[in-house]
Amino acid sequence: MTSNSQVLFTKVPTAYPQPGEHMQVVKSTIDLDAPLADGDYLVKTLVLSVDPYMRGRMRSAEVKSYSPAFELNKPMNGHVVGEVIKSNNPDFKVGDYVYGNGPFEEYTHVTAAAAKRFVVRNEARDSGIPVSYFVGALGMPGLTAYVGLYIIGQPKKGETIFISAASGAVGQIVGQLAKQSGLRVVGSAGSDDKVNYLKTIGFDAAFNYKTQDINQSLSQACPDGIDIYFENVGGETLEIVLTKMNVKGRVVGCGMISQYNTQSPYGVKTLMNLVGKRLRLEGFIVSDHPEAEPEFLEKVIPLIKEGKIKFQETISEGIETTPQALVDVLKGVNFGKQVVKVANL
Amino acid sequence: MTSNSQVLFTKVPTAYPQPGEHMQVVKSTIDLDAPLADGDYLVKTLVLSVDPYMRGRMRSAEVKSYSPAFELNKPMNGHVVGEVIKSNNPDFKVGDYVYGNGPFEEYTHVTAAAAKRFVVRNEARDSGIPVSYFVGALGMPGLTAYVGLYIIGQPKKGETIFISAASGAVGQIVGQLAKQSGLRVVGSAGSDDKVNYLKTIGFDAAFNYKTQDINQSLSQACPDGIDIYFENVGGETLEIVLTKMNVKGRVVGCGMISQYNTQSPYGVKTLMNLVGKRLRLEGFIVSDHPEAEPEFLEKVIPLIKEGKIKFQETISEGIETTPQALVDVLKGVNFGKQVVKVANL
Repeated sequence: MTSNSQVLFTKVPTAYPQPGEHMQVVKSTIDLDAPLADGDYLVKTLVLSVDPYMRGRMRSAEVKSYSPAFELNKPMNGHVVGEVIKSNNPDFKVGDYVYGNGPFEEYTHVTAAAAKRFVVRNEARDSGIPVSYFVGALGMPGLTAYVGLYIIGQPKKGETIFISAASGAVGQIVGQLAKQSGLRVVGSAGSDDKVNYLKTIGFDAAFNYKTQDINQSLSQACPDGIDIYFENVGGETLEIVLTKMNVKGRVVGCGMISQYNTQSPYGVKTLMNLVGKRLRLEGFIVSDHPEAEPEFLEKVIPLIKEGKIKFQETISEGIETTPQALVDVLKGVNFGKQVVKVANL
Repeated sequence: MTSNSQVLFTKVPTAYPQPGEHMQVVKSTIDLDAPLADGDYLVKTLVLSVDPYMRGRMRSAEVKSYSPAFELNKPMNGHVVGEVIKSNNPDFKVGDYVYGNGPFEEYTHVTAAAAKRFVVRNEARDSGIPVSYFVGALGMPGLTAYVGLYIIGQPKKGETIFISAASGAVGQIVGQLAKQSGLRVVGSAGSDDKVNYLKTIGFDAAFNYKTQDINQSLSQACPDGIDIYFENVGGETLEIVLTKMNVKGRVVGCGMISQYNTQSPYGVKTLMNLVGKRLRLEGFIVSDHPEAEPEFLEKVIPLIKEGKIKFQETISEGIETTPQALVDVLKGVNFGKQVVKVANL
């Protein structure tokens, strides 16, 4: 038997989750030599992705939302890249790299019935791009950026886009794609290091929302107003941005991280702008747009190879770091895309 | 010389406007016998329309918004139906009824340069439908209902629509059109008389938001949730509705009358639903959609003639009643579409 650590969801949090209380890493075992039923295969997890939306899944199962609640005392799950290490399924060969929604554990026995939870993604093995990018810039967060910007945001050359949480996994891709599409790109982030990074990757302006006045900073950074707001934070930032939006502006509702860990949500007082300026505020979820993935990969893989899109990551080592890594994401402690490296490649 | 009373905008209000202070009716004169320059014509105002959006025009000219500010000490203006009583323009013949944005005065001298502010609408004279309907059910408010419901709301048979201020000029048309399109139709209004009226014109459910609990009432009236919210009021109602919206629901941002006359706008605390349910909140202005007017009239005129769409009005008599009529609209004192009858037909 082989040791197989798992990250369990153990308690519903009411504020920020705590490692050891709401999430626990437990040692389990798996028999990697046991025969596989027809269509089954075994995946060794290489990297796993922790993302802000997971906080919404840490809820009681009765509360409905766009993504299902995590099951109590079961492994959490999310986007992973793994390697097929044993297979009785012709579509998944030993040595293939796979991508999909997997349990947070070192080894996963995928049954035939669940075989389609992964797709083969051997670019993660062969392209020379770091494997971790395939749960980041080239994974769900990257596709989220692409769908949100192009399908929901409908950008036009010369417009101004403002992105909150701009150094995050999604934000940094949105900004660089928008720049390539000819927009003026402005971002906010929570530290001077993050702000400096944004300027090095082509943002026209960026500010630290913790130390600078949001209203003034936006007025200076967006002299022609804001046409698209890529919304990752909600709350006061949204309230201020609405007053700066141009007529027919669009708010791309990707996330509202400032509201995830509070029992007292912020009251936004500027919604009159919706009518006065004919704004469109639209929430979306990337899984509604699977059709966009092929064109996304085709467009973005070369940009990354050529260095035209940069990608900042924070990589923590070992599956046992997963709970803290998620808390760091929710608190903005990490810098860029947070990934957990589960196995050495 | 003929007496020609005008309604002037005389002071910017900070709360509800007051007749005599922010709007004043003054007596002017006009020489109806003076010769007309090439392309000019004279219009006798028959009915004029006062509508909630006018509150937004009673502002300082420096503040930009979707409709221009009224000019201080000049006649207010809005939608009117008038009769051409003298003409030196071949497109406007004596006896024609015209519709358009006109100054609030008994007689208007339209210069050649401004000739297109009116269109000939002889249905208002010939169809047997009351002239006042042509600034209401068949005027700007009716077209607003049509554009908001069909172009912005994108209704599907079997869905549930909730309409606030549902007995108003726009709301009653939205509800009856939505019913004809196979939706479940729910409305709120501010008196029991208005609620009873809504039930007589086919609303499936209606409640008095002043005396009934909005949250409970909506839960009872919308057992399958809300797919479309036709937003006329804003504030607390919007906050509650967002919690009841279905996935991919749409909020048609037509107006937010609860927020027009206050310096302390309401903070809406439920915007997290935008992301969680992939909602679309979209503001619009009817003048962005002139292309919809011909099909609107073609569809709705027969429905009104056949009695399949009913229309409640409050008609005040005489141009001097205009300021109070507008205040009544803003306070919800009137019932249905508020019209001012300026001249006997």
